[in-house]
Amino acid sequence: MSAGKKSKQKSTRRLSEVAGRRSEKSGLPPGSLVHIGEPSEDNPKIRVITFGKKIHDDFELQSFDAIEPLLKSGQFLWINVDGLNRVDLIESLGKVFSINDLILEDILNTTQRPKAEILDNFLFIILKTLNFDEQTGETYPEQLSFILGHNYLLSFQELAGDPFDEIRTRMKAGIGKLQSSGPDFLLYALMDAVVDNYFVMLEKIAEKMEIIEDELVADPNKSTLAMIHKLKNNLIYVRRSVWPLREILTRISNSEYPFIQETTRPYLRDVYDHAVHVVDVLESYRDVASGMIDIYLSSVSNKLNETMKVLTIIATIFIPLTFITGWYGMNFKDMPELSWEYGYQMVMIIAGAVAAGMLAFFRRKGWF
Amino acid sequence: MSAGKKSKQKSTRRLSEVAGRRSEKSGLPPGSLVHIGEPSEDNPKIRVITFGKKIHDDFELQSFDAIEPLLKSGQFLWINVDGLNRVDLIESLGKVFSINDLILEDILNTTQRPKAEILDNFLFIILKTLNFDEQTGETYPEQLSFILGHNYLLSFQELAGDPFDEIRTRMKAGIGKLQSSGPDFLLYALMDAVVDNYFVMLEKIAEKMEIIEDELVADPNKSTLAMIHKLKNNLIYVRRSVWPLREILTRISNSEYPFIQETTRPYLRDVYDHAVHVVDVLESYRDVASGMIDIYLSSVSNKLNETMKVLTIIATIFIPLTFITGWYGMNFKDMPELSWEYGYQMVMIIAGAVAAGMLAFFRRKGWF
Amino acid sequence: MSAGKKSKQKSTRRLSEVAGRRSEKSGLPPGSLVHIGEPSEDNPKIRVITFGKKIHDDFELQSFDAIEPLLKSGQFLWINVDGLNRVDLIESLGKVFSINDLILEDILNTTQRPKAEILDNFLFIILKTLNFDEQTGETYPEQLSFILGHNYLLSFQELAGDPFDEIRTRMKAGIGKLQSSGPDFLLYALMDAVVDNYFVMLEKIAEKMEIIEDELVADPNKSTLAMIHKLKNNLIYVRRSVWPLREILTRISNSEYPFIQETTRPYLRDVYDHAVHVVDVLESYRDVASGMIDIYLSSVSNKLNETMKVLTIIATIFIPLTFITGWYGMNFKDMPELSWEYGYQMVMIIAGAVAAGMLAFFRRKGWF
Amino acid sequence: MSAGKKSKQKSTRRLSEVAGRRSEKSGLPPGSLVHIGEPSEDNPKIRVITFGKKIHDDFELQSFDAIEPLLKSGQFLWINVDGLNRVDLIESLGKVFSINDLILEDILNTTQRPKAEILDNFLFIILKTLNFDEQTGETYPEQLSFILGHNYLLSFQELAGDPFDEIRTRMKAGIGKLQSSGPDFLLYALMDAVVDNYFVMLEKIAEKMEIIEDELVADPNKSTLAMIHKLKNNLIYVRRSVWPLREILTRISNSEYPFIQETTRPYLRDVYDHAVHVVDVLESYRDVASGMIDIYLSSVSNKLNETMKVLTIIATIFIPLTFITGWYGMNFKDMPELSWEYGYQMVMIIAGAVAAGMLAFFRRKGWF
Amino acid sequence: MSAGKKSKQKSTRRLSEVAGRRSEKSGLPPGSLVHIGEPSEDNPKIRVITFGKKIHDDFELQSFDAIEPLLKSGQFLWINVDGLNRVDLIESLGKVFSINDLILEDILNTTQRPKAEILDNFLFIILKTLNFDEQTGETYPEQLSFILGHNYLLSFQELAGDPFDEIRTRMKAGIGKLQSSGPDFLLYALMDAVVDNYFVMLEKIAEKMEIIEDELVADPNKSTLAMIHKLKNNLIYVRRSVWPLREILTRISNSEYPFIQETTRPYLRDVYDHAVHVVDVLESYRDVASGMIDIYLSSVSNKLNETMKVLTIIATIFIPLTFITGWYGMNFKDMPELSWEYGYQMVMIIAGAVAAGMLAFFRRKGWF
Repeated sequence: MSAGKKSKQKSTRRLSEVAGRRSEKSGLPPGSLVHIGEPSEDNPKIRVITFGKKIHDDFELQSFDAIEPLLKSGQFLWINVDGLNRVDLIESLGKVFSINDLILEDILNTTQRPKAEILDNFLFIILKTLNFDEQTGETYPEQLSFILGHNYLLSFQELAGDPFDEIRTRMKAGIGKLQSSGPDFLLYALMDAVVDNYFVMLEKIAEKMEIIEDELVADPNKSTLAMIHKLKNNLIYVRRSVWPLREILTRISNSEYPFIQETTRPYLRDVYDHAVHVVDVLESYRDVASGMIDIYLSSVSNKLNETMKVLTIIATIFIPLTFITGWYGMNFKDMPELSWEYGYQMVMIIAGAVAAGMLAFFRRKGWF
Repeated sequence: MSAGKKSKQKSTRRLSEVAGRRSEKSGLPPGSLVHIGEPSEDNPKIRVITFGKKIHDDFELQSFDAIEPLLKSGQFLWINVDGLNRVDLIESLGKVFSINDLILEDILNTTQRPKAEILDNFLFIILKTLNFDEQTGETYPEQLSFILGHNYLLSFQELAGDPFDEIRTRMKAGIGKLQSSGPDFLLYALMDAVVDNYFVMLEKIAEKMEIIEDELVADPNKSTLAMIHKLKNNLIYVRRSVWPLREILTRISNSEYPFIQETTRPYLRDVYDHAVHVVDVLESYRDVASGMIDIYLSSVSNKLNETMKVLTIIATIFIPLTFITGWYGMNFKDMPELSWEYGYQMVMIIAGAVAAGMLAFFRRKGWF
Repeated sequence: MSAGKKSKQKSTRRLSEVAGRRSEKSGLPPGSLVHIGEPSEDNPKIRVITFGKKIHDDFELQSFDAIEPLLKSGQFLWINVDGLNRVDLIESLGKVFSINDLILEDILNTTQRPKAEILDNFLFIILKTLNFDEQTGETYPEQLSFILGHNYLLSFQELAGDPFDEIRTRMKAGIGKLQSSGPDFLLYALMDAVVDNYFVMLEKIAEKMEIIEDELVADPNKSTLAMIHKLKNNLIYVRRSVWPLREILTRISNSEYPFIQETTRPYLRDVYDHAVHVVDVLESYRDVASGMIDIYLSSVSNKLNETMKVLTIIATIFIPLTFITGWYGMNFKDMPELSWEYGYQMVMIIAGAVAAGMLAFFRRKGWF
Repeated sequence: MSAGKKSKQKSTRRLSEVAGRRSEKSGLPPGSLVHIGEPSEDNPKIRVITFGKKIHDDFELQSFDAIEPLLKSGQFLWINVDGLNRVDLIESLGKVFSINDLILEDILNTTQRPKAEILDNFLFIILKTLNFDEQTGETYPEQLSFILGHNYLLSFQELAGDPFDEIRTRMKAGIGKLQSSGPDFLLYALMDAVVDNYFVMLEKIAEKMEIIEDELVADPNKSTLAMIHKLKNNLIYVRRSVWPLREILTRISNSEYPFIQETTRPYLRDVYDHAVHVVDVLESYRDVASGMIDIYLSSVSNKLNETMKVLTIIATIFIPLTFITGWYGMNFKDMPELSWEYGYQMVMIIAGAVAAGMLAFFRRKGWF
Repeated sequence: MSAGKKSKQKSTRRLSEVAGRRSEKSGLPPGSLVHIGEPSEDNPKIRVITFGKKIHDDFELQSFDAIEPLLKSGQFLWINVDGLNRVDLIESLGKVFSINDLILEDILNTTQRPKAEILDNFLFIILKTLNFDEQTGETYPEQLSFILGHNYLLSFQELAGDPFDEIRTRMKAGIGKLQSSGPDFLLYALMDAVVDNYFVMLEKIAEKMEIIEDELVADPNKSTLAMIHKLKNNLIYVRRSVWPLREILTRISNSEYPFIQETTRPYLRDVYDHAVHVVDVLESYRDVASGMIDIYLSSVSNKLNETMKVLTIIATIFIPLTFITGWYGMNFKDMPELSWEYGYQMVMIIAGAVAAGMLAFFRRKGWF
């Protein structure tokens, strides 16, 4: 992901965004096409790759009329749209592939929950990629939608930039079965890339957690707790994005849906295993994060205890001594000790003994 | 929702209300028709819209005799009742559509749990709309009931006012498929409006949570905790209202019930997806709210620690000094230091050294 | 429930009772008939109502020989036994209706878990009514057992008194379908009364919770916590009694059991909906009660903080001042300030400045 | 259970035992017969009862050759082995009844999880009895294994002593159906005895909990917390032993296994109901125990608060007074008040006023 | 496990490793063979054992060509690979047995989640052994993979060393059914060894927990909490490794997969029972560990309370006394008590009375 792109990313910090964007649409008739997400000035690009035994073509789409003949050419088609801010383009594309409005609405609404829908003429999938920023401790989601037809795959990215560049490179280089295996295998490859992206995110989160753990031991302070809190909220958010993936993969890999070939199913099951692994790891991270809060709270208590001990030691040593000095500071006419020859020395000895006794008492208590 | 209406809303604050209203009826035979809810002076209005290819008519119902011919006219019928305080009206309507007493009882009892019931001649659904008031932090529920027959839809609102005005407007304007698609599609549109209303509520709750989070960082106090507590109770209440919706939608969208057309099912599944999303978000809000309480408690501990440090620093600096002054305030006859030439200066230096030593000790401990 | 009856109620406070009574029987052969429950001096009364199209008879049973002819008369029979302390009566009744010993044992053992059993010749159900006493905060259970045969219903109450009087009154008055609908509808009516009783209990618990919540805000003390604890234990107990009801109702309303008529099923489903509602509400009450403990703990912490602030403010203002006075109370021969003309005034000013500075410091910290 | 036996009981205190004993065997081939449990000097006794219409015989087995003819005699056989320390005896018995090594291994390993296994020629069940010792707060488990064949029941006790004496007595006395109903009913009776034993244990645990609850209110101290902790660990352990019983009973009472007669099934369902009850009660005890820890923690906080209040009251009353006395203990040449006629009286009044003011302040705060 | 091997073990401490290793591969095409794990210099050894009625041969494999004839010889084949760092060897082996790349990828990736996959020509299983190091409190995992074909078993160990030596010894010695029962029984024996290894680990963890529990009672300090935290994280990690084993065993022991013989199934069910036992014990260990944190926190609170009591007792005894001495240290001209004959004695008595009164007050409060 390029540096320039980051500034356009959405933050998860603001809780209200999830619901907020949705509510803008509240009241519109269902199927109304509105882009819900970060506004952007970039013009969406539509990139077309035709493939079969080999890559036949790779160009930027200029006119929607070009698609029809390609579909009939017997080649496979991969059309990638990056950027969702031009509703009219999406709509035109929808018309070409006869995608109904409810689906287009979901593609445009980037606050969607990940899901899979099996329709008569295609398979529709929504996923999220997640980028954890170590600096801010925030997770930035990007919504990806896929439409898998008989001989085509449409992919929609929320942001310009190119998470799929690698796959395109591999495709061109003819590595693996990508060129020859049809759009369902391509879909698998893209989903695999998304799940691999989760492992990258997990690693970053884990590094952050280790930093926090070290801080917890060394010098826990208010910002440590804030960081743990942020982290926990992030894990909650991430879990919500990843969890539905299991269900999605179960559904499409088990289904009798004709457009997923038998040979692709083991690969989808493989992605499924990885997704389960991600969820497992997330769950244990949440447990670990909960444990951190206990550590923090007890460390605050420990500090308080430490403070109190210092106060108590100082106070309990000097308060009796001060009493003694006060005693011989009284102005009674007749205080015999005041005129004893070794009165002053005696007080010195008593004071020393009291202080030593107190110190011995505290040492026995293990206070220092 | 109009301002005037708000004053009539029920509060969730009083826990006993949920059970309380129910208990008023305890002892009555089942099927007894009693309005359980906020009493109201308003006269319920019954509004009838007949539609088919277009909207044929839209009027306020004056006599129940008018319904029979309309049902036979081949047009679709939407009858909306706002206000439940006139039991006799509901009862008369029930007779016209042969709705049995158990159903009417549920419609009138506004403390009902959301549910769907599939009967021989119609489908019966109870839902809740929820309005979160940012000022008070309370959620105000309103119960909506629907009866979907072969060619009619009855809707019952608890409060006067018009959450469905928008849909009526769209219907009239001929936007979408509302006019032509029959009462099942209308039911979908109304349920979609209810779920959209949940997103509005989520957004308001999230905004409230952000305000509390900011307060937690800046200046947490007793009212912050009270607010978190209120919020948590609200989330518990909201969850109870939204949760059954999933089951309801699963049931009616999967069922072989003849009055839901095949073409409407994808739309219901869409509402289902949104309902699942709402529940997901609610769950994570609850997790976040629980985390807030940890933050609050640790912030209280931190404050205590802060207070203790101030006390400890002041006390441990001055207590030894006071001891020294007490020492030379003793009245022993023979205290040589008192008559030393630089005795006073020496004490000054000692006192300064003790104070400086203490300060250094605290700085080393990182206390200030 | 009459006041006189309350004194006979069992308390839930003693945890050991649940298990305790059971253990008295440990070692006896299964099927041994022993009354496990509060001993009572009252003589159980057996009341018989014969009904069909109308109520034919209503009398107290004197001899078991009277039952046989009634069973053959073509009328429906409702036999209610209040009080379980006369084992021989129950046994005789068991013989008349060929009820096996395991069932009779369950009827007599009032520590039973609610359950339903479907046997060849009848349906056996155990339920609990629950009475929450606002004064003591205790829940008093009463066990009810039902045996539904082809043309008869037996009901067994643990305590004398009459929770079913109302139903009997309605039956006599011919309200609803009670008279004409057979013993299965009567069973429904009785179960409905039990669930309505739960709503009464929920309302009382909710009122108690509101009182506690107000106390939490106003003046939380040790007894508040004890009350929350008691309440939570009560909710745990109540949940255990209500929870199995869902399963019971599912089982009997879905079963192909011939003695429940098709027309009664919707009514049972209605009771089921209410039972689910009760469980829902109970769950949220438990969540709310857990939240209360957090509030209580943080309020204790707040109080401690408050106490510490008072101490810290007083101590940190006066300790430096006392040091100053100590300083000029020293008896050094040569302390020039002591003989300065405005020495005393100077000390006054210094002391005032220190005190004012401290106060300003605390105000800046927001401590008062 | 005799007093002499107690000393031989295993303790649950040592967490490692559960796993520990197992690990001794790690590395041995599966099916290796090793006794894993407390070593014992007692010689196991094998007691044989033959029954059918009546008890035919009851003797201690001397030779394994005696079994074969008994099996063919048409009578039912109950063989009870108490003590597992003589592996060779168990092995010989296994040969007579053709029990495979995996089963024998499970019988000898007393750290086994309760389970049921349905084999071709018999049914194999492992259970635990649990004895709670009020003195130590520990639970002592004993493993029981049963093998139910067509016309015989083998039972294996871990410890000498006789939990089944009562059943033997009833059998001899001809109470109930024990003599005549075959080994499956005998198995039921033994399992019923085990579950009854759980109720005894629950009662003891509940009594312990009540003692702790009273202590929590009266005088909570460190040992109270240790006791709650021990109790919780015990409940965790007990739950692990009782929980599988539900599954076991479901399995054998539902199965089409030929050796359980139709007439015995209702009895097994009855035991099942009781087992569910035990699990229910255990769950609520765990909830109650968790609540106790909250109470304990808040009571510690309350005590701290109490301590702080005493300190604060004393300190804040006397610190200002000491300041005043310090003030007039200064040695300035010119302190006019010192020579006022009523100076001393004035200071008395001021000191009294300050003390009274402080006391009034604390009373207003509700501190005493 | 040899001492020399330990140094090569992977630590679980670094949370990021789990995800980290995976992420190295992110971007590679699926099926790319890369060893993800600790790099090692050792050359992997491939050991072949051919068996049937007896062990025919046992040698280190030099050339892959030797395998083909062995497979056709009618004997069973066990090929064990220790060390995964030579990707080419694994790949060659994969070619001989026609194992596809996805499987080989999983074998090489040692951060895999345990799983079973049933393929057309073989069964693929991934497991973990876990070694708990008492010194560091860390768990070191080792990944084992198995491929069970019709007449062969391949096993892959992550680390050189020999967890299976024992089984090889037993095999050679002809103990049990290992030699004669085919590769499925051998698989069972290996899995049984893995589960036995879990019991060893549980025992070590339990010993650690007992040490911590003793420390909690005797002298809880900061490192105790750190140890509990580490332990909890370890339990979370271990649970994640063991949990899938249940599912794996259910799957392969129930499946109609032809390569598991009917006679082996009971043995697999036995391993399943043990796996369930391990999971049960793990769950209760987690509960116990959670309880420990409560104990720790309350013990910190208790210490604080203890500290405060010492301070309060000392301060409240001496502060009033100091006030008295201050009083008679005032320099008023006219303080009659100063010149009373027994003034000094009177003050002595008053001071003694105040101190005694305070001590009595604290004793009554039970503070010492």
